[in-house]
Formats: sequence, structure tokens, C-alpha cells
Amino acid sequence: MAELTMGVGEDIYELVKRLFPIHRSITGKGFRESLRIIKEYLPEIEIGSIRSGERCFDWTVPEEWDIEEAYIEELPSGKRVVDIRDNNLHIVSYSEPFEGILTFEELEKHLHYREDLPDAIPYVTSYYHRTWGFCLSYNQFKSLDRSKKYRVVIRSSLFKGELNWGEVYIPGNTDKEVVFSTYLCHPSMANNELSGPALCTFLGRYIKSKERRKLSYRILFLPETIGSICYISRNLKRLKEKVIAGFVVTCVGDDREFSYLPSRYGNTLADKLALNILEHHTSGFKRYSFLDRGSDERQYCSPGVDLPFCSVMRSKYGEYLEYHTSLDNLELVSPSGLEGSYDIYTKMIDVLENNSVYVTTTLCEPQMSRRNLYHKISHLGWSGFTKLMMDFLAYADGLNDLIDIANIIGKSAYELIEVKDILLKHGLLREL
Amino acid sequence: MAELTMGVGEDIYELVKRLFPIHRSITGKGFRESLRIIKEYLPEIEIGSIRSGERCFDWTVPEEWDIEEAYIEELPSGKRVVDIRDNNLHIVSYSEPFEGILTFEELEKHLHYREDLPDAIPYVTSYYHRTWGFCLSYNQFKSLDRSKKYRVVIRSSLFKGELNWGEVYIPGNTDKEVVFSTYLCHPSMANNELSGPALCTFLGRYIKSKERRKLSYRILFLPETIGSICYISRNLKRLKEKVIAGFVVTCVGDDREFSYLPSRYGNTLADKLALNILEHHTSGFKRYSFLDRGSDERQYCSPGVDLPFCSVMRSKYGEYLEYHTSLDNLELVSPSGLEGSYDIYTKMIDVLENNSVYVTTTLCEPQMSRRNLYHKISHLGWSGFTKLMMDFLAYADGLNDLIDIANIIGKSAYELIEVKDILLKHGLLREL
Amino acid sequence: MAELTMGVGEDIYELVKRLFPIHRSITGKGFRESLRIIKEYLPEIEIGSIRSGERCFDWTVPEEWDIEEAYIEELPSGKRVVDIRDNNLHIVSYSEPFEGILTFEELEKHLHYREDLPDAIPYVTSYYHRTWGFCLSYNQFKSLDRSKKYRVVIRSSLFKGELNWGEVYIPGNTDKEVVFSTYLCHPSMANNELSGPALCTFLGRYIKSKERRKLSYRILFLPETIGSICYISRNLKRLKEKVIAGFVVTCVGDDREFSYLPSRYGNTLADKLALNILEHHTSGFKRYSFLDRGSDERQYCSPGVDLPFCSVMRSKYGEYLEYHTSLDNLELVSPSGLEGSYDIYTKMIDVLENNSVYVTTTLCEPQMSRRNLYHKISHLGWSGFTKLMMDFLAYADGLNDLIDIANIIGKSAYELIEVKDILLKHGLLREL
Repeated sequence: MAELTMGVGEDIYELVKRLFPIHRSITGKGFRESLRIIKEYLPEIEIGSIRSGERCFDWTVPEEWDIEEAYIEELPSGKRVVDIRDNNLHIVSYSEPFEGILTFEELEKHLHYREDLPDAIPYVTSYYHRTWGFCLSYNQFKSLDRSKKYRVVIRSSLFKGELNWGEVYIPGNTDKEVVFSTYLCHPSMANNELSGPALCTFLGRYIKSKERRKLSYRILFLPETIGSICYISRNLKRLKEKVIAGFVVTCVGDDREFSYLPSRYGNTLADKLALNILEHHTSGFKRYSFLDRGSDERQYCSPGVDLPFCSVMRSKYGEYLEYHTSLDNLELVSPSGLEGSYDIYTKMIDVLENNSVYVTTTLCEPQMSRRNLYHKISHLGWSGFTKLMMDFLAYADGLNDLIDIANIIGKSAYELIEVKDILLKHGLLREL
Repeated sequence: MAELTMGVGEDIYELVKRLFPIHRSITGKGFRESLRIIKEYLPEIEIGSIRSGERCFDWTVPEEWDIEEAYIEELPSGKRVVDIRDNNLHIVSYSEPFEGILTFEELEKHLHYREDLPDAIPYVTSYYHRTWGFCLSYNQFKSLDRSKKYRVVIRSSLFKGELNWGEVYIPGNTDKEVVFSTYLCHPSMANNELSGPALCTFLGRYIKSKERRKLSYRILFLPETIGSICYISRNLKRLKEKVIAGFVVTCVGDDREFSYLPSRYGNTLADKLALNILEHHTSGFKRYSFLDRGSDERQYCSPGVDLPFCSVMRSKYGEYLEYHTSLDNLELVSPSGLEGSYDIYTKMIDVLENNSVYVTTTLCEPQMSRRNLYHKISHLGWSGFTKLMMDFLAYADGLNDLIDIANIIGKSAYELIEVKDILLKHGLLREL
Repeated sequence: MAELTMGVGEDIYELVKRLFPIHRSITGKGFRESLRIIKEYLPEIEIGSIRSGERCFDWTVPEEWDIEEAYIEELPSGKRVVDIRDNNLHIVSYSEPFEGILTFEELEKHLHYREDLPDAIPYVTSYYHRTWGFCLSYNQFKSLDRSKKYRVVIRSSLFKGELNWGEVYIPGNTDKEVVFSTYLCHPSMANNELSGPALCTFLGRYIKSKERRKLSYRILFLPETIGSICYISRNLKRLKEKVIAGFVVTCVGDDREFSYLPSRYGNTLADKLALNILEHHTSGFKRYSFLDRGSDERQYCSPGVDLPFCSVMRSKYGEYLEYHTSLDNLELVSPSGLEGSYDIYTKMIDVLENNSVYVTTTLCEPQMSRRNLYHKISHLGWSGFTKLMMDFLAYADGLNDLIDIANIIGKSAYELIEVKDILLKHGLLREL
């Protein structure tokens, strides 16, 4: 059984903190440096790569991007008014190199801010369109002197390099696998997205700690969109054969309500499991539609790919105030928020390990009293554990797996694991 | 795309006005005269006929009926108190010839009126039971002098003749056909039923005006019940092979809320289409049950016939005050009411022309930015047309036609035509 | 048609009264004596038996139990403070023989009472665990003198004997059968459970009184749980082949609201029938879930047995205050309560006798007026019986049986029997 490891939330939070300052994008040194840190926790991680310019389905792998320096100086004073040394988000991701002196009017076309969030630096990218730009808070923007000239320096490089990802495979007794897919391409934001890679790292450790594993597990640390497309394009056949459930792990670090985003039709094992566990182990959660999708389930659940992926989050991307700004920082996520997500995900793992179609070994009800599984003197009806056992047996008819039975009888599948184990032990059930 | 032809409502209304004074029944001169007028608008109309006494399934085609004169004179004054020259509805349809002098008590057995609508002349028929009768308003009835005698004159004829219908066939690139069935057998009433034949006439002109037509269309101007039974009995095999959707077009002329009456199980293409268009292009509509049926869907949707017909109306027959009385007149219907119905029906035609199962041509999402179908610099999520394209692609999985996709993403199928066209043009979709 | 036999409720109640004083358990003289009384009403009843120690699926038939005397005397006065001569419920069913003098503390461990119902003697059993005990009201218990000693006498016998049941088979034109299963093992309680055996006795007489019977019927008077398990174990193949619907008849004697407890998935003919009749012939009823089960449907609906059984009750066992206590007595049940249940069950029998898939014999609607099945002069739409006939014909498409049609058109299947008969008589329907 998954026990809440004391303090695991603190450990996950520490990893978020270590990864936070690194300047990441969908390619580049920052991404690889982040994988190196995760390897300290999960030594079996393997680094995958694919060359710039390669085709992956409809896409072409972009050039690699690295950024060394980027700032704006007010002239003639030379005062640096914007500098990525202050915040990685100041530069539009994939900005091309540039150096020049501009009037305010010229500069302004390259500045991004959010009037509705005057203190926040927005997160802006331009992966597939060559341009450059800076992001700054609206308050910063307003403080610029429109009569001055500005020197802009962007020392970035765009070159034929590679796109990377990290992959951890933890084998079990069968090659049926469960996938946790997360993305590591965001710079210096905490809920979206360091919570996902950090949680996945600790889920890997949890899975390894389990003595017997029926299932195999795969954890993917990808660049979002292009990364999942590349990975799927190179592994589709195996994924379709082996994967029984997958989860896009993102936005799992804050303390707010849980969220659930279904697969394309909401009818996969992953969906069924997530709904049962969220229903019984949270105080409430928000159900989204696949129309609200926005992360790698767009690829995993696309027509023809059709993998059984859903997403269990806390505050969903796009739905919280701080999303894609500098306000999504280390104060937004917390050890308790991360630990709550860890709790839900480890319970889902435990259920998957125990999920099968079970059938009764006798016709009619078995004689529970003979096995000391039943109150001996009968006043009234069944209660408590006896009721759970009898209800489990009633629906262990070869049509339902453990989660189905849990849903029929209105209980947590996680809590039924013990019921199933006792019935198995007494020979009253068999696995189909 | 269906554009609202300026003033088409006025044109349809003019046709209603021309047809209104003619004395029609399920057979006879009036019916043929009405078809002749429609032929001025749709020259390709063909007049079908079947002889009195012929069998059609369980029915026998009745004799032809014509009426020349019918009135009641008060004696001895000779004052005409009821005369069909004032209103065609004064005579019970299919009244046998009669001439005689009656006491009020004798006459009264042959008079029909509505106490609940004291100014309305009711519409009464007796197609399959030989009798005669007059219809008059309750106020008229009350004003008759019970102490007087009355001379009744009905110069009608019932004879072995024929039953007629009009049929317009407009071929397209395939022989899969859409049927619009309406009925022309009602005398001098406007919503039920000249609105249907008049609208169908202009739908015919609309269909002909479309340059490319994937589908073929058939418009039927029938006598109600016996006409559809006769037509089905002579064409069942073809109808079952070719018809993909059909509509009973009736009560489409007033300005009130739209109505929808489903097929027997509400699960045909016609139903799916009608519901989508009514949902997104009216401010609300009333959903009836097949148990509320009352027109030719009774035959089209009968067991063994099982054609995919439903009915889109404005105020449904039997559900509005003026129904089947002289109050259902030229004031009840209006150019705007007729034009609103024209708009819904032409949108349904446009969707049918564009409806297919479409599938994506790439695995995973295509790279929209490369095709200038996407914002280049990404702040937040998708919006507007981009969102429609991505959602269309997500469900273009070979399981859904255009209307299904529209229903899944909560949009009008009519509005998705443009989305589909752009995706097709860019090679991102193919028709299955 | 089932007519309410005047006074049948009184007759059923009289049988309850005759059976009430007998001391019954799951085996023994009392059970057989009760069957003998029922035989007076249903001479074709056959007594089945199975020896103690035999295996039935997972169970072993228990020893036979008889009780002659059981009391508690206060010492030294010799006053009998508890005695089964006052109430059969005073002894725990299957108590082993015992004689001895005990302190109050020793005695107390063997006493059962209900603090929440201080005047009620609870009903307690210990079939499969050797012990002894007395049941008494909480008020009685409180009045015992804790300083006294008590002499306990239980003259019971437990011996290799047999377990019995009663079985009535009433053949019809086909061997498809309907089962009414009830249980006779409860001592001196009225709603649960003499109402069931008494009602079933009179259902047997009702079935025999029907002139033509399409179906065969089987009525089972069993000991609960072990009885149904034994019966199923010896007859499973036949039951699975022949039974089209079955009912666990229990708690049918009081005047309170009806209850419905479904089969395992609520999708059998028995469920469909029960819901239709309860919906249309009661003023409301309570729907339970299979999770609320507690009687022999536990066996009939168990995985692998899968018989189409549900339960139609009045106050469900476990859900009324007096349940399993001495308060469930002859005042709780009534002639009117029993007669109301008789009415529902006989209506269900009538519907089963008339239930088939019917299909129309014509395409399109038939010409009803030709057969005098229709108003001859038409003002408005259909009404009353005409509407029922037309709606029946519309859904007599080979997909629906009589009950399905009733559910589609929102009517009682019982009331549609007459509609079906008239349509059959006129050759407008045939049975599939």
C-alpha cells in the first residue's frame, strides 16, 4: 500500500527549487542540465536525442537555441532597464541574436507585457518564427522613458543541434506499461512547469521501491508539443501495443483544488482510474472537457495515435491567474501541494498494480461464517467490511475489473485492494 | 453558402396568397390547379396520378371529389345564411350531393362549429364515410332561427377519377437523395397548409441555384396521409435505397417559436441535422415526441418503411389556437415567418451538401504555424478560428461526420463548413 | 384480466394468522407443519428434502433443529421470567440444549435485547455457530434482579435430519417458466415473513384459475439463504434454461409504500415488468439498489447463477422499525396491504401471459376507419383509445415487446393488453 512518506513533499519541493534558476527552452543546455540533476535522483534515466531538421510526422525538429546574455540599456546613461540576469522570462524564448540602438517606438514593437497583471513578467515564446523580443511587467514598461534611445543586446545562438528528452523505464513482471509524461521546457516557473518533472522524479522512486510490480512504467521528461510529437513518431507501434494507461503530469504543485482533463472520449482506463481516485480521495475536483486540453494529451489522444492518456492536475494551465508569468514562482507551489499530488498519483499506481478482472470461485454466496469472515450471530444485515466483501463478490462476475466494482458499489478502488486481497487469500476469488 | 435572398420571404408569401382562394381537397380540380401554379415556379414538376379504387398497402384510393356550390337558405326568406362562396371551409370536405328542405332540428345534425372559438369556422373532413355537413362559426350558428325551415343545396360530385401529386427531382452528383415532403390538400388555410408547399417551391429554386450539388433532391407535393401512403407504396424500394434524410415540411409560416418532431426513434441523420441547426440558429425551439406526430411522418417512419424523416416547423399543427379553422389565414403567416423557415431549411441543405466523415491526414497535430494558420508568438492558449480548427482536427478521427463534430464541440454544423473547407484546402483533412 | 377478487386480502390474512403461532426455523417440525397447512390451499405442493451434511455449492446442509421447551427461572422463587410459550422469538434460533444455574453476570452474556426498541423482542439466529441464547425486550431485561441466580432450561435437539422446502409447479402451454420464491423459515413474524408465503399460496390459486396459460409457473417455499442455495444447486441447469422472470416475494403485507429491489444489473424482464406496473399502478414506490439486497436475490442474481429475479415488496426488510422483532406482528400486516400486493403481482402475471414481440401486418398505417376503429369525421387529432392503438402500431416494429411499447408510450403494460387484443383480432398485428 502507498503510505504517505513523511516529508516527501519537502523533498519534491527541494528539487523544484534546484531546477528553478536554470534557463530552459525546448532545446539547449538548460534542458540537458535539468536532466542531469534529475539523474541524481533517478540514475536509470536515459537521454534521448534527435537532430535539428529531422521530420517527425508533420513537424521539423527546430534548431537548438542557447542564450548567454540579453539586456536593454537606456542611453546615454547605460542603465540596464531589462536583463535576463534578473529573470529568465525577460527574453522571448528562441529570440534570434540582435544588437542595435533603437528609439522607444522601434523598441516598443518587441516588448511584451500584461496590462491586466501589472507586476507580472509574461512568458512568451517564438519557436517557429524568427524574431526577437523582451518581456517585462507593465509597471516596468510604463517606467521607461519614451524620449530616450535604447541599446538592445541579445547574445543567443540558433544552430543545427539536437532536441533532447529524458526517459526512465522501470520494468515489471509484464511488459504492459503505464506512462507518466511531463515537460521540462519551461524556464523559471514553478507550477507550470517544474511541479510535473519533480513529481515524476519521485513517482519513479516510489515505483522502484515497490517490491513486486505487475506492470512496467515509463517516465518521460519532454519538451512540450514538439517533444511528445518526436517521441510518439519514433515509438508509436510500441506505445500502442503496450501502454494501458498514461498521464500527462503537469501543474501539480499548488494547494488548490484538483483538476481532471479527460482523454478524447473520456473512456480509457486512465480516465476511469483518475475519476475514481479523485472522487474518493479529494474534497472535490474540477472536471474539464477534452475541449479544454492544452498540453501533450493533444498528441497522445490525437486521431490515429489514440493512447489512453488523461491528466490529473491541481490548478490547470490557463485557468489560474499566475499562469505563464513570473508570478508562477516558488511561492505558488508548496510541499503540501506537491505531496497531495504525490498521494493521488501513488494511489493510482497502487490501484493499477491491483487492477484485474476477478471472478468468484463459487456459485451462490460463499459461506463466510465458516471462514470467520462473518458475524456469527445474526441480528440485522451486513455492515462494514462484511458488506464490502459481499458487494465485491456480487459484482465479481467476469465483467468488471477492480475499478468497475469500486464504481458500482460507490467506493474507492484503492480501499477495495484490501477487500480483494482477503477474498483472494480465502480462495473466494480468482484473477481472470 | 446559403445567403438570405433579400425578400425571399415576400416571394413565398405571395405564392401563399395566390394559392389561398382555391378550393382544394385530397383529390380534384383544386389540387391540380394548385400544382399548375407551382409549376410556374418549378417547371420541372411532374404530376403523378393513381386511379380511384386502386389499392395502396392497406388503403383504397378514394373517389375524386369536386364541389361547385353549397349553401343553406333560410325559408321562406331565401336568405343564404351559409355559402362556400364566403369561405371554402363552410362545406365538410367530401360532402355528398344533397338538396332538400329541413327543419332546424334536422339541419343541426349536419352543422359543425367550435364553442371554444366562437368566431372561427372549423375545418372538417369525411373522406371515407359518406355524409354531408356544413361548418360555421358558433356565433353564426347561434344567430340561426330555430323556428325556421332551411333549404340545403350541395352540388358536389364523387366519381371514379384520380388522386394526384406533384414531384420535383433535382439530380446531383450522386443519387443519394434528400426528400422534402409537403401536402397541398387543405383548402384556404395558410400556416397549415400553404406555408409548406410554398416554402418547398422556393427550396426547389434554392437547390437549383447551387452550382455543384453532391446530393439529389426530391420535393413531393402530396395529399396528406393517402398521398404519402400511395407514393410510398409505389416507390418504397427506391426510397429505402436512396434517401439519406427527409423532412415533412408543414406549418412553417408564422412568426412563433420553431418546433421539432423527431423520427420514430429520433436517431436519423435528419434528426441530428435538424437539432444542430435549430440549437444554434434559433433563439429556442420546442421539442416534441414522436408520440405527438400527426402528419406524413406517420407513414415515412412507420415500421417496415423506416425512412429517416423528421419535421421542422414553426407552430406545430394541433398546438396553436387557429389550427384547422378559418383563423389560420393570411394574417397568421408572414413574409418574415416564412423567411425564417427558409433560412433554417437552406442551412440544413448546405450542411447536408458538406456533411461527410473527414479524417486527419497526419498523426499528432499538424504544424499550423508553418501554414500561417496559427498565431506565431505564443502567450496563452488557442482562440477563435484556431480553436475551431484544432477541435475539428481532434475529432476528425473517422468516427464522426461534420455534424457529429459540431455536436461534440458545441458549434453549428453550418459554421463548421468554412473550417472544414480551409482544413481540406491545406491538405490537413481528407473525406472518408 | 386480473380482477380484484373481493375479499382475497381477508383470505390471505387468515392464512397468515393460522401460520403465525408455529415455531419455525430453517429446518424442523415447524417448517413441515407450515407446508402441510399450505397444502390445504395448494394440494399440488411437493415437499423437497436434502439430508443434513450434504454439500450445496460452498455450503453444508446444517443439522435439523427442534425446540420443545426453553425458559429462564429466577431463583429461588422459581418464577419464569422468560419462556418461549409466551413468544417463539424468546429463544435464539438453533440454540443448543442447555440446563444449568447461572449468576446474572453469566446469564447476561446469553441475552439479546434492543435498547432502541425497549418493548420489542428481537429475532436472533445462530445457525452455523453452536451457542445458546435468549431474546427479550429491553424493559424485561431491566426488570431482572441482578442479585439473583437463574435456572436456564433449553430442551432443543440438533441432529442429522433434513432440510425441506415446498414446490408447486403449474404447467402452461410452454415450459418457459416464471418463479415466485418465498421463505418460510421465520418464526412468529408477520410481514417478514408470513406475508410472502401466504401471498404466494394465493398467487398459485390465481394462476390455476386462469383458463389458458402460455407460461408455466413455479412457486418455491424455502428456508432463506441455505434453502435457495440448496434448491439452485440441484436445479441450476433447468432454471437457466427455462426461467424468464422470477420474484423474491417477501414483506408484502403492510399498508405502506411499495418497494422495488432490482436484479444485479436491473436489466431483466422481471425488472422491466415490475417497474412498469409499479409506475402505473401505485401512487409511488421506493427504488432500492441491488446494494440494498438482503434476501434470496443474493443467490438467484449471483455471478454464474444470473437468474432474472427482482423483488417487489411493501416495506422492505431492514428498512422498517418493526423488522426482525416481535413488533412485526399481526397488527403490522392487514388484509388491504396483502390485497394491494396481490393486485400488483396478479397484474404482473397477466402482463407476462400477454407479453410478446408484436409486429404490424401492413406497411404504413392501416385504414382504421374501414374497420370502425376510428372516428369517421375528423376535426382534430387522435384521442383516447385510438391514440393508444396508433401508438402501439407505430412501435410494433419487431424491436419491442408489449412492455417496451408501454414504456415508450408512457402507459401501463397491463392496460395495453386490451389494445393489443383488439389489434390482433382485426389482423393488424401478429406475434413474432
